[in-house]
Amino acid sequence: MKKRSSEDLTYGIRTVIEAIKEGKTINKILLQKGLTGDLVKELLTLVHKENIAVQKVPIQKLNHMVKKNHQGVIAMISPVAYHDIDWMVQQIYEKGEDPFILILDRVKDVRNFGAIARTAECFGVHAIVIPNKDSALITNDAVKTSAGALFKIPVCKVTTLNAAVDFLKGSGLTIFASSEKATINLSDIENKGPKALIMGSEEDGVDEKLLKMTDVNFKIPMTGTIASLNVSVACGIAIHKLTRT
Amino acid sequence: MKKRSSEDLTYGIRTVIEAIKEGKTINKILLQKGLTGDLVKELLTLVHKENIAVQKVPIQKLNHMVKKNHQGVIAMISPVAYHDIDWMVQQIYEKGEDPFILILDRVKDVRNFGAIARTAECFGVHAIVIPNKDSALITNDAVKTSAGALFKIPVCKVTTLNAAVDFLKGSGLTIFASSEKATINLSDIENKGPKALIMGSEEDGVDEKLLKMTDVNFKIPMTGTIASLNVSVACGIAIHKLTRT
Repeated sequence: MKKRSSEDLTYGIRTVIEAIKEGKTINKILLQKGLTGDLVKELLTLVHKENIAVQKVPIQKLNHMVKKNHQGVIAMISPVAYHDIDWMVQQIYEKGEDPFILILDRVKDVRNFGAIARTAECFGVHAIVIPNKDSALITNDAVKTSAGALFKIPVCKVTTLNAAVDFLKGSGLTIFASSEKATINLSDIENKGPKALIMGSEEDGVDEKLLKMTDVNFKIPMTGTIASLNVSVACGIAIHKLTRT
Repeated sequence: MKKRSSEDLTYGIRTVIEAIKEGKTINKILLQKGLTGDLVKELLTLVHKENIAVQKVPIQKLNHMVKKNHQGVIAMISPVAYHDIDWMVQQIYEKGEDPFILILDRVKDVRNFGAIARTAECFGVHAIVIPNKDSALITNDAVKTSAGALFKIPVCKVTTLNAAVDFLKGSGLTIFASSEKATINLSDIENKGPKALIMGSEEDGVDEKLLKMTDVNFKIPMTGTIASLNVSVACGIAIHKLTRT
């Protein structure tokens, strides 16, 4: 085991297999390109079953990250465990509360992710949903930027956001999404009842397919020339509006 | 002249004196501790007249920043010129608009400052007012984080915020300030007419003396356990509310 600034690393094929079996929350596994063998097969079967992201990289990258014998496999361990979305929603309803879930569609910047988690926790958002791929993960940097919020607000990692949105709609939540192309203004939307808010990536906002699955797409009207808010600021404005009664 | 990542540096006593006389916008002057002489006196007289911040530092710090002969003086040049607050307010009224001025009370983090400038520009805030001391300055990092907004939105640097608030009140602006101790909720305030919004430092919010000079102090109600928003997110929520008609 070796400490890095961003997250803990575990390496060696058997060690990583054991970490998965022990239920450690793994952000990502880095696997040496072209690596073969029975243990590798066992690892890949487990990884597939547990739906862990794998990135194939040249051995030089692994050598650079870990000076000891990594055997071609490095796992990045999350400082916080991820939650199951089904269980999460059930828990909120059982407490007698209206769920308010925040869905982050490919928000990749770790600082934005941390800042958003801080805001979400401040306003009592119940949970954050992120996709298994193309998302910032709960690294130590994210925890730090969140002012510790990531130790408090549950994060659910899902295989696809489409399936998660489908599930949340089926669970009675109204789905809102922020989109520059929307015709409805944020200030005009109703904020009552169980709901989920989708905020999109820094580059291109919420995915078109997701936008078609929502109940209400809204925009935040702007008058300046830049006309593009940072996602963590836009998220703060939207969460504040949706939590105001 | 030597390029740094954060801002341009000019050094040498005569060169710095000339830079001031030419009207360059100087963020700060670093002066070697114990430096004396007629030219130093001339420099200090000019610096005092132009109200430029001076920091006395050990020669080692100067040597570390500039490898050539700095003669004990390094000036940090701003990539953007600062504006005069009187002239600024007059210009806005002459355009027939209601001024909306953002006052940042000791916001010191360059990224927060840049992010706030971006939000302010997006929502059509006319100008940002910062104090001469204890504030993030317009460095290249601030400009980058602002997504270029700091090239578009005027920034006024003032000697004291108290005098600036006095001036703005005298110019017909309603002064709002964000304060955790306020009893009025942001969602309940009126947003019509000429106005200024004061947002406070990352550590302790808006200064107590300033809070006593304002017309309305408001809070952003929160339900989570952290109960402390990042200043750039809080600023986004407040500006959004104050620009909504």
